[in-house]
Amino acid sequence: MKKSDNLSLGRRQFLTGLGATGVVLATPGISVACESNKVNWDKEAEVVVVGTGFAGLAAATEATNNGAKSVIMIEKMGELGGNSAINGGLFSVPGSPLQKKSNVSDSPELMVEDQKKSGRGIANPEILLHIATHAIDAYDMCIKAGVQFNEQLVHMGGHSAPRSHSTANRTGSGITLPLTEQLLKRGVTIQNRTKFLDFVTSEDGSVQGIKVREGYYFGDENSGDIKYIRATRGVIMASGGFSQNIRLRMSQDPTLTEELRSTNAPGQTGEGLLAMLKLGATPVHMSHIQIGPWASPDEKGMGYMPLYAVFNFPHSILVDRRTGKRFVNELADRKIRADAELSCRDDKGNPYPPILITSKKSAEGSHHTLDNVLRHNVGWELENLDAIAKRFDVPLEALQQQVEDWNAYVDKGNDEQFGKPMNMVKGQKLEAPFIVVRLWPKVHYCQGGAQVNKYGEVLSADTGMPISGLYAAGEVTGGIHGVSRLGSTSITETLVMGMTAGRTVMKNTA
Amino acid sequence: MKKSDNLSLGRRQFLTGLGATGVVLATPGISVACESNKVNWDKEAEVVVVGTGFAGLAAATEATNNGAKSVIMIEKMGELGGNSAINGGLFSVPGSPLQKKSNVSDSPELMVEDQKKSGRGIANPEILLHIATHAIDAYDMCIKAGVQFNEQLVHMGGHSAPRSHSTANRTGSGITLPLTEQLLKRGVTIQNRTKFLDFVTSEDGSVQGIKVREGYYFGDENSGDIKYIRATRGVIMASGGFSQNIRLRMSQDPTLTEELRSTNAPGQTGEGLLAMLKLGATPVHMSHIQIGPWASPDEKGMGYMPLYAVFNFPHSILVDRRTGKRFVNELADRKIRADAELSCRDDKGNPYPPILITSKKSAEGSHHTLDNVLRHNVGWELENLDAIAKRFDVPLEALQQQVEDWNAYVDKGNDEQFGKPMNMVKGQKLEAPFIVVRLWPKVHYCQGGAQVNKYGEVLSADTGMPISGLYAAGEVTGGIHGVSRLGSTSITETLVMGMTAGRTVMKNTA
Repeated sequence: MKKSDNLSLGRRQFLTGLGATGVVLATPGISVACESNKVNWDKEAEVVVVGTGFAGLAAATEATNNGAKSVIMIEKMGELGGNSAINGGLFSVPGSPLQKKSNVSDSPELMVEDQKKSGRGIANPEILLHIATHAIDAYDMCIKAGVQFNEQLVHMGGHSAPRSHSTANRTGSGITLPLTEQLLKRGVTIQNRTKFLDFVTSEDGSVQGIKVREGYYFGDENSGDIKYIRATRGVIMASGGFSQNIRLRMSQDPTLTEELRSTNAPGQTGEGLLAMLKLGATPVHMSHIQIGPWASPDEKGMGYMPLYAVFNFPHSILVDRRTGKRFVNELADRKIRADAELSCRDDKGNPYPPILITSKKSAEGSHHTLDNVLRHNVGWELENLDAIAKRFDVPLEALQQQVEDWNAYVDKGNDEQFGKPMNMVKGQKLEAPFIVVRLWPKVHYCQGGAQVNKYGEVLSADTGMPISGLYAAGEVTGGIHGVSRLGSTSITETLVMGMTAGRTVMKNTA
Repeated sequence: MKKSDNLSLGRRQFLTGLGATGVVLATPGISVACESNKVNWDKEAEVVVVGTGFAGLAAATEATNNGAKSVIMIEKMGELGGNSAINGGLFSVPGSPLQKKSNVSDSPELMVEDQKKSGRGIANPEILLHIATHAIDAYDMCIKAGVQFNEQLVHMGGHSAPRSHSTANRTGSGITLPLTEQLLKRGVTIQNRTKFLDFVTSEDGSVQGIKVREGYYFGDENSGDIKYIRATRGVIMASGGFSQNIRLRMSQDPTLTEELRSTNAPGQTGEGLLAMLKLGATPVHMSHIQIGPWASPDEKGMGYMPLYAVFNFPHSILVDRRTGKRFVNELADRKIRADAELSCRDDKGNPYPPILITSKKSAEGSHHTLDNVLRHNVGWELENLDAIAKRFDVPLEALQQQVEDWNAYVDKGNDEQFGKPMNMVKGQKLEAPFIVVRLWPKVHYCQGGAQVNKYGEVLSADTGMPISGLYAAGEVTGGIHGVSRLGSTSITETLVMGMTAGRTVMKNTA
């Protein structure tokens, strides 16, 4: 139907100027009608950083390196460091001193090629290359702050070279603690129990500061006092992902129900991201949420299982307790394994976690990871298959047959059942006594978030241009890794992009 | 690092009340500081509908059915109907009179099962069932408005029953025109060249109306005059997808570059969605954008190719001009075929569209679709393989061998090359003269958008609760179909959810 131009059709034409009160335009920046408004600033710094994980710490460090005299960091939880402090502390650094010492040939370009493959066509190669190229700078920043790494490189899945560096204490706190200490020495203000509530903008939409609750206790949304913190140079959002926001993650993927716990710290609820979206930031890849197949339903959070499971998958079998049989290649990619585990359910559809069976002899090769799962009661030693069948209600005969079959595959060096790579099994048959653990996936990482450019500037969905005064880094941003992220690349990303945002805010306001 | 509660660390404590002017809180609704503001309303209606496609028309129809005395619909383009008016007009209706007449066994539940499969785990079964159950109501609404359907059901890919109803004129305008006429007769105001700019809200964040440009000319963002339209009951956003917003679609999928045209009307640029996100709506599945492998680079928009190609794929071969060989199963799913086509590029990486070669004799079975592609110069008759090789720069010998091989597969009823189903080929060998067309994918459908519940209420990302005064339906919403949508289900969705939103806005304000 073609209408003549500019034609208004219908029986009514309403009068102009009907008048209304109490109405404001929804979108700041487009507003022409809303009066300017005064906020009484309670505090002020050149740079305000929301979040105290890798990205926030790197941003504050690099801002002070580039001349910032005053930086305020806020953290809503009682403990600093967020998710970064509790993760596995694995850090990809192509071209590191340790790689050179170990004669490993690697390059930023090679790392990006690996990442693009894992991103399945929708990663951002430009930002990935920026990150990989500057990984060595992030590594140097860590070393200068006193971070200690183990002398052994780790070769993780999907990487074409061993390039993962492990912190001496084998958690991310090995990085967050020294960086935090250094910032305190530099006079940076770090406030815990301070929740980000909203941005404060000028009428043109540029970010002037933030509204927070100081003295906030997680879960009590009325705790503490409202304060306004002014940022004379800019606000850097480093507030993390939304894995612990069950409603939000289920809006993206209805299979990520409450029964799927998260490896993340409880504070990863995404308010910072949502506030950026309301400011007009572009949401990218929010529906790509990574779940990890190496988690235990018998412990909270990240737990001890991931490191144990990753070590033991090659020479273990993962068994569906309903059938006594294997049901997936134990070395398939994260998504394949996690989906297979999720299909193990009882008659009522409730989770019925499968069990990973390992010879004790083989598991002992995993050193402290075995000690950890046994000590914390997320893994158990059982003397024989009969004991396993009784304890986990598995059909004994089927289980016996499965183990016999598996051991034959080990002999042949060929998994006729699921085509699992056998090169790492090295003749280790399944033999009593056994170590048994239960596995159930956990929500691990939000691939999506607010879109940034390679300078750490947050891009407006309307214009594609940076939103003035607003920067972001880390898991709160999205679109960098694509569909799936390789292990140990998050520390690289968060540190490099944090540093980048810290530099950009200083440069933009120089 | 564990900090004692409520501790503020650092060398500086800033004075409170530094004072600032010209600052407003970014987020309406959370605001406690922003003064109320007066908007002079230019017009008023009970219900304001943004968009004049299927969803908007259905919403206005059902609002008036449920007692709305005044409805204003706005359309930013000169022509009404948006994308809906130009699509193929295929409408899934499980349990329709035509199905009964044709003795087709079908049900809403069966349709939802098909859709869940296509949605690959992340569709919304609750809303899909609501839609499928009410498809018959949408069909009845069409019949009452005078819509005419063909007497032949269509069995489309991924559906387990023939349930697609085709409009008599074989485009969506067969539905949009009668619904529009009916609304005009009912006194509904329909304004073309009126661009939605923003929402107007009260201080509690509820939507009171919209800000528009009347007399707007697409592409001239300063054309026309700013007006405010008050909605006393609510605003229904039916503003469509964002396939034509190249920056936004590339932010989600960097492969959807400008060279990938869209089947969509040019106005599908997503401002309505972006304004909802700024109001706090939940973005869902925006990264899932469907591209269609049945499009031609030799015509704009939807064009004549899709119907021709869908008809001829079974008995044709799709040939990479660089090699003279087939490169994909011509009946694989949309994504597989589209990705394969996109890999056909010259040395510089520029698109090098593959050619679909069909015997003229077989193509003639497609009746008017052949006439259309020949008449509009998007397909050509060529007397032999030699002519094809010359015209499209294909290695002749390889092409001859490929045709010989293909014809042998036809004889055997077995595609040894790509495992294509041969049951529809029925002995039709490739023989001169030939019809040749070029194929290159086009962006077709945004699976993602703003999250709604099954009442058509828009859900806040912060709370998961409806945003007061705001409703949405159609392609501007997201998360209903999951990763991939089945053909002919969009009309069902947009009509049913439009009707639903029209009922809900009346019920909520009764």
